[in-house]
Amino acid sequence: MTAYKSLEALRKRASVLGNAVGILHWDQETMMPEGVAPGRARDLAELSLMIHEIETDERLPDLLAEAEAQQDQLNPWQKANLREMRHYYVHANATPAELVEKIVIARSDSATTWKEARSANDFKRLAPKLEVLFNLQREVATIKSEALGVTLYEALLDEYDPGRREKQIDALFDDLAGFLPAFTREVMDKQACGPAVLQPQGPFPIAVQEKLSRRVMEILDFPFDRGRLDTAAHPFSGGAEGDNRITTRYEEDDFTKSLMAVIHETGHALYEDGRPGEWRGQPVGESRGMTLHESQSLLLEMQAARSEEFIRYLAPITREILGGSGPAWEADNLLRLYRKVEPGLIRVYADEVTYPLHVILRYKLEKAIVADEIRANDLPAAWNEMMEKYLGITPPNDTDGVMQDVHWPEGLLGYFPTYSLGALAAAQIFAAATEAAPDILPGLAGGNFKPLYGWLDDNIRSLGCLYTADELIEKATGAPLGTEAYKKAVRARYLD
Amino acid sequence: MTAYKSLEALRKRASVLGNAVGILHWDQETMMPEGVAPGRARDLAELSLMIHEIETDERLPDLLAEAEAQQDQLNPWQKANLREMRHYYVHANATPAELVEKIVIARSDSATTWKEARSANDFKRLAPKLEVLFNLQREVATIKSEALGVTLYEALLDEYDPGRREKQIDALFDDLAGFLPAFTREVMDKQACGPAVLQPQGPFPIAVQEKLSRRVMEILDFPFDRGRLDTAAHPFSGGAEGDNRITTRYEEDDFTKSLMAVIHETGHALYEDGRPGEWRGQPVGESRGMTLHESQSLLLEMQAARSEEFIRYLAPITREILGGSGPAWEADNLLRLYRKVEPGLIRVYADEVTYPLHVILRYKLEKAIVADEIRANDLPAAWNEMMEKYLGITPPNDTDGVMQDVHWPEGLLGYFPTYSLGALAAAQIFAAATEAAPDILPGLAGGNFKPLYGWLDDNIRSLGCLYTADELIEKATGAPLGTEAYKKAVRARYLD
Repeated sequence: MTAYKSLEALRKRASVLGNAVGILHWDQETMMPEGVAPGRARDLAELSLMIHEIETDERLPDLLAEAEAQQDQLNPWQKANLREMRHYYVHANATPAELVEKIVIARSDSATTWKEARSANDFKRLAPKLEVLFNLQREVATIKSEALGVTLYEALLDEYDPGRREKQIDALFDDLAGFLPAFTREVMDKQACGPAVLQPQGPFPIAVQEKLSRRVMEILDFPFDRGRLDTAAHPFSGGAEGDNRITTRYEEDDFTKSLMAVIHETGHALYEDGRPGEWRGQPVGESRGMTLHESQSLLLEMQAARSEEFIRYLAPITREILGGSGPAWEADNLLRLYRKVEPGLIRVYADEVTYPLHVILRYKLEKAIVADEIRANDLPAAWNEMMEKYLGITPPNDTDGVMQDVHWPEGLLGYFPTYSLGALAAAQIFAAATEAAPDILPGLAGGNFKPLYGWLDDNIRSLGCLYTADELIEKATGAPLGTEAYKKAVRARYLD
Repeated sequence: MTAYKSLEALRKRASVLGNAVGILHWDQETMMPEGVAPGRARDLAELSLMIHEIETDERLPDLLAEAEAQQDQLNPWQKANLREMRHYYVHANATPAELVEKIVIARSDSATTWKEARSANDFKRLAPKLEVLFNLQREVATIKSEALGVTLYEALLDEYDPGRREKQIDALFDDLAGFLPAFTREVMDKQACGPAVLQPQGPFPIAVQEKLSRRVMEILDFPFDRGRLDTAAHPFSGGAEGDNRITTRYEEDDFTKSLMAVIHETGHALYEDGRPGEWRGQPVGESRGMTLHESQSLLLEMQAARSEEFIRYLAPITREILGGSGPAWEADNLLRLYRKVEPGLIRVYADEVTYPLHVILRYKLEKAIVADEIRANDLPAAWNEMMEKYLGITPPNDTDGVMQDVHWPEGLLGYFPTYSLGALAAAQIFAAATEAAPDILPGLAGGNFKPLYGWLDDNIRSLGCLYTADELIEKATGAPLGTEAYKKAVRARYLD
């Protein structure tokens, strides 16, 4: 027990530093005066180093071994906590310090070049930087795959979604890749025969949009006494344990994007807020990886908030706060607007039907990158070919093609699949919830999220990392993560 | 040199944690949602503990001894840095951990009780808590006085104003105590014969007052790219190195207090901002104690901003932004308003002539407390007696008497004198500056602070802790800290 308690104390300290980093990062993106940037970057690097030092503390191997040998003295939560501590340990200690340092430099170089190359539409400038970064990431993957006993790609993915396997993703994504292109055409044909979609006409002053955001967050029971909404150039959901700060940005001529973005980030925040409080500061009290996290934001945004029930409730509130009138503000039009399906170039603007195709494309390419089967220079051609294959469009330039996302220039390989795995999980969880609790949909129709949250609290939020992501999904929904609920949901929404 | 470099690395890390604490504290007072308070308090306590661990690192005694033995290899800045490291070490290591912990508990208990006792005007409730805290502080004073070779009171004072001696304060304060009561009456008699002071009539919406604050801060060259102005219930100047965040609060019916409070905090911020950048993160790069700090805020507020030159420049700006008109808004009236002398009960509302008398009273009482010559229970009577003696008024209750300040309930003994020592220093420094640089006063008349700042940068701000506070004052002004410049300044301002 003593070894386990020592491990808890170390994690507790790391979590306090993590909270400080979280608030300093939030401050950096929302409040910090510009001239402070270099000093803040140095401070954040030093604090991250301090966390890393705790995670590579020389006492850890013995403490972990001893605690694991005495596992039968631990209760299930403590056991799960110990499992997660081991997970942290493997990731922090697998990679030698020199390699970590090389990656920090290569990442900064590549991310900086990405900004310039993107505005100049000059992928050739970015390619050599990506090549360097990818080579280093392959080194990491090789080392971690041995430590974890998994494939190279899984070794990278494991940091974002522990335990996830390629085979499972392949099967799910092949299924979607077979289904979605034809389904997209079918939906588009149907929508072409329906009424035109009207865009409410602005401008919508930012202060008024912010008022709408807060009103909707109140409806969603966002805990404003334990969180904030602010504006940031690159919106994110952050803060610290028990202090969830979400951000958004507003466009004066279109309120619709920001509104759903706020609901999305609220989903992330509510997942964080619902974590088991008695495990604050411990790994088992954390959220369960990016697939689950994305499932919680998408469940709120795509499943609950775009339901007919909620849009009909939301329409008059939106109209009143923004001072709109006319047919563009009717619930029927808002429903059409929020359900318009159309292949586009840009992932972040994609609708829920075409979005997975963007992700599948990236997944296939990054598997090839990790397997060293493709050179950075060949990415644009491969990208454009797959865009044509999956979405039927070819990017007119690399800026709106292979260079649109910051992920690869930042060295984030293995992150993309969690977006669509999260979408599948969201559909599956929402279906299970609404079946188990028949008052959820009538609740949404009256702006009452409590029935939904009651189920989510019991089955997802309060469980932290007690189970693996897949165990959690299967326990909550009665089935392993699959595509059926998602396909059923989009068929019902877009074709019935 | 190696020992010295190791010491620098330790201090650097402590300063990064200090910066995090600074921003988290700022956030707590300005942005943080209420419900986060308990978690934030725990995080701040843990971060403070981490700083304390660095300051009590077991390698320090050897490292300090070795570096001190090799002092001849250090340049003057490094030598001063080492001296300040020793100072940190003595304060952090003198007090045993159990005593520190007892004080944390007693302080929290006494500060909480103070709030209740104050609103209930019930000093009897507070007295036993104060007694406990004072006893513990006397223990600290005893231990530190041995470590530092100074008197008990000096041992406490040393944390706020290193090297300051009781004898020096006694002499300065006796001088002021002899001068000020008669001078106050003389000024009041004179002002009674002058024109009535008119109070500009509000309400002044907070948004407009904030606009005025920002305008005035721009005139004062506040570096908004390295700092912020926000609102807080208990205004302070804080933030992190290179990131100076000041706060204020507004009263809708009176803009005059907040305006000068903002100028005061700007003075603190500019001192911080002017610290030697190449010594960021090191003790020698820090500001030189509370007397110097207060001298910089008061120099801006009392000497520069209340000068006839600047008030004449400020009056039309104030009138325009606040939309005022009539005789109350004329520069002559604003001058009278900002120079009204009248003994009052409350220190923080006192004018610059009667303010030192409030401080002297507290100084004498806390010397008696530290010497164990007075019981907490006897403080109200002693307080009221001295109020009558120095200011000619007797508080009608203890809430507006002995319980008005948070300092003693917070265990801050030895802090009060720095306010008035700072006022003396401000007058002396301003006199030296305006004599050395004749363009300072004409500058203020045109809202141009650059001549003043040029002199302050060279002689105060950029010197950090290279010298002791007294050395710094003597080098800058050509004389030891005294009362002459202050007396000359108030005579000129109030009687001529």
